[in-house]
Amino acid sequence: MPVDPNATIEITCFDWVPDFARGFVRDLRPRWACEELGLAYRERPISAMHRPEWFYAEQPFGQVPVVRDGALRLFESGAILVHLAEREGRLLPQSGQARADVFGWLFAAYNSIEPVAMEQASVLIFHAGEDWAEARKPILFETIDKKLSRVTDALGEREWIAGDFSIADIALVTTLREFDRNGQLRKFPSLAAYLERGMERPAFGRAIEAQLEAFSEEPPIAA
Amino acid sequence: MPVDPNATIEITCFDWVPDFARGFVRDLRPRWACEELGLAYRERPISAMHRPEWFYAEQPFGQVPVVRDGALRLFESGAILVHLAEREGRLLPQSGQARADVFGWLFAAYNSIEPVAMEQASVLIFHAGEDWAEARKPILFETIDKKLSRVTDALGEREWIAGDFSIADIALVTTLREFDRNGQLRKFPSLAAYLERGMERPAFGRAIEAQLEAFSEEPPIAA
Repeated sequence: MPVDPNATIEITCFDWVPDFARGFVRDLRPRWACEELGLAYRERPISAMHRPEWFYAEQPFGQVPVVRDGALRLFESGAILVHLAEREGRLLPQSGQARADVFGWLFAAYNSIEPVAMEQASVLIFHAGEDWAEARKPILFETIDKKLSRVTDALGEREWIAGDFSIADIALVTTLREFDRNGQLRKFPSLAAYLERGMERPAFGRAIEAQLEAFSEEPPIAA
Repeated sequence: MPVDPNATIEITCFDWVPDFARGFVRDLRPRWACEELGLAYRERPISAMHRPEWFYAEQPFGQVPVVRDGALRLFESGAILVHLAEREGRLLPQSGQARADVFGWLFAAYNSIEPVAMEQASVLIFHAGEDWAEARKPILFETIDKKLSRVTDALGEREWIAGDFSIADIALVTTLREFDRNGQLRKFPSLAAYLERGMERPAFGRAIEAQLEAFSEEPPIAA
């Protein structure tokens, strides 16, 4: 589904980010969901480096993505995934154990796994080389390994984390990618294979291509 | 709503936790939601100190709460809040901007605010006094202050974070309590007042009382 300037759905993204963030900014999640659901969307790029003050009225923490769907305004990628899935009646079962499992894994990705990915980014990228970050690494990586090992057990032989492919997989795959940057996932071959399956979906490919295309080469000059 | 051993809903909780965790274990969230919704629940206490291996099959990370509702099994407190609200058709609007806002703040609490509360627990409790934890504090507390300041702006003069009292408030109030332990919230009087409003709700009072009552005085001996 190509990006369409006349689409009803608008995804706010960044106009430029440093190399380490390219392909990892979280507007990837709604882009991916839109691609899976066959929904066209338009882009609204804003500056990550000079975050406009008015943007905080739309997103309390100045983060992307923010999504408009007609008159509706949505923030937090998890909430946006739920909205897009409910809008189309796909990627999130309507009821019963299947719905409970998708919601369980959706929140697990956001609250039980991604927080340690954020901490990892803190010690490996934002505070790389600082004494405290070096000292923090051993126990943090041990914690991460424990979590990945538990996700491995839970995944077992299944193709997707909670029944059919769902928004829980969009959240989990995009989170697990953070642990693939330093090869930690090599220790967990079935998780690495799961990640691969997710990233091989054509919708994922189109989503990441669109995110990368939206970035300018050089940081735009502040207005 | 008293705890009722014959209730359809079962909340798994811990049989004992150290003092710093009492009143803060996350089964507080479904307890509170059940109290708001007038739903009876029974308790299933397990050991936090000797986490039974079979429990990981129910909860991938060995965390509480896990909830059973008849034949349904649910994990992750965020998913449980959604389930309880949808079950009763309350605390989560059915559609439109109101639903988007509640989901937005629900995920904001779980993914944009709670992760720094977890990191705070790491430096103040689990690794208290370690060199790296001391060195980590200044920037972490600056980050926390920035987030709390943004939540303050977003709350404005409103009574609850997203329209009527909702599951987003249950998530946000229980998260903000983590920042009240060290007085950080004093800098944000309107947030402190919001926290107070949440904690003054009779349902919150009954929930926390029930959590505290479920703990034994001394750690039970491992079986």
